[in-house]
Amino acid sequence: MQTYKAIISYDGTSYHGWQRQPKKKTIQGEIEKVLSKMTGKDIPVIGAGRTDAGVHALGQTAHFKIKVSMKNSDLLKSLNACLPSDIRIVSVWKMAPEFHARKMARSKIYQYRIWNSRSISPFQVRYVHQWYSPLDTVAMRKAAKLFIREADFSPFSSNRFLNPTRTVFRSSVTQKEEEIIYTVESNGFLRYMVRTMVGTLLEIARGKIEPDEVEEMFKRGRRSLASPTAPAKGLCLMKVRY
Amino acid sequence: MQTYKAIISYDGTSYHGWQRQPKKKTIQGEIEKVLSKMTGKDIPVIGAGRTDAGVHALGQTAHFKIKVSMKNSDLLKSLNACLPSDIRIVSVWKMAPEFHARKMARSKIYQYRIWNSRSISPFQVRYVHQWYSPLDTVAMRKAAKLFIREADFSPFSSNRFLNPTRTVFRSSVTQKEEEIIYTVESNGFLRYMVRTMVGTLLEIARGKIEPDEVEEMFKRGRRSLASPTAPAKGLCLMKVRY
Repeated sequence: MQTYKAIISYDGTSYHGWQRQPKKKTIQGEIEKVLSKMTGKDIPVIGAGRTDAGVHALGQTAHFKIKVSMKNSDLLKSLNACLPSDIRIVSVWKMAPEFHARKMARSKIYQYRIWNSRSISPFQVRYVHQWYSPLDTVAMRKAAKLFIREADFSPFSSNRFLNPTRTVFRSSVTQKEEEIIYTVESNGFLRYMVRTMVGTLLEIARGKIEPDEVEEMFKRGRRSLASPTAPAKGLCLMKVRY
Repeated sequence: MQTYKAIISYDGTSYHGWQRQPKKKTIQGEIEKVLSKMTGKDIPVIGAGRTDAGVHALGQTAHFKIKVSMKNSDLLKSLNACLPSDIRIVSVWKMAPEFHARKMARSKIYQYRIWNSRSISPFQVRYVHQWYSPLDTVAMRKAAKLFIREADFSPFSSNRFLNPTRTVFRSSVTQKEEEIIYTVESNGFLRYMVRTMVGTLLEIARGKIEPDEVEEMFKRGRRSLASPTAPAKGLCLMKVRY
């Protein structure tokens, strides 16, 4: 058996997220289906992150173990030939048997795209969250910096976790014409964490709350009403670092 | 009644083309549905070009006549609020009553996108025609120029027309990394004309026929087997000039 690492991009619009679910179309499910056709066996595919329904990826990373006598480039071609066109394997790499896409990930980088204009191209509409009214990106930038810390991030999640401590290394806002991009890197993300942070940043950007409120949220230690969850379609898993 | 001109973009993937058809989802059908909801009347929407199933548009142009007492910006908002997200009205303009989107069009500009690489982003896959093996873009450029003429274009169409003479003003190939873009402007297009011209250019680009063969095709005056029809999804109506 050879362990492979695969870098995967997908348009998450038509899928119920990464994780395999009975009777539902998921990214993991589609890739496992192709691998089991190729090998005649059940091959589990372990992803670094379980993206939610509607979330996209440019650099999702996964591993699987198969016994094939193919060159990497041929394996890549076969996989892409069998997968639906909205899931693309970017590359495959032979790894040592102990490689584990989730456990060994040092950090993950997500981006969240906000399209701050009424007018939008129909080619972009699936990949951004459209926001009509003006947004205060200066306040947004100021608040984004406050997420850079090692802390209990459960105020920015929907669930309770045994260990809710995460370290955010990078949290920044850039703007290019109508597009506002939030980039965040962390050693791990709680459920809905990025979308809740973005929801908070949007409340700040529209002037409903002050940037410093982020500090208060961490102090209070529980989820605030001021943190709605931003829609899935603006979110994209960009890269997993090992 | 006020005549309006509307500039429309759409992702054609999920539609049976521009033209209204009973029981099928079409762009014209969706826009007419929204206008009839707004006004309580049947409002025909006349497009400059009838794009085929799966073809996209950034600058389709259409006209319709309605009686509303709304500012243009409010009309634009209402239309976009009611339309599906893969159809977007870019702008609306009040026009003189004699304005006609099809009859008055001086020219239309189409682009055809070829993605010349095995690796492709799932965000682009709906909007390009993917081609794996190397393409000779020098030969393609040379051949593209031969389309610039006033001529009977039926060798590059599927149907017979009473008057198949069209004038192509511009026909050029540009390349940016993996993407090859063919741009063509004409005073009118026969059915499948752009896609058949692109099919011919692809046969030239892969070395199956010589660029000069285009000249022969015009001379023979009927469709050649060397002119397959390129797939719809690479094609986009960019602009209509008046």
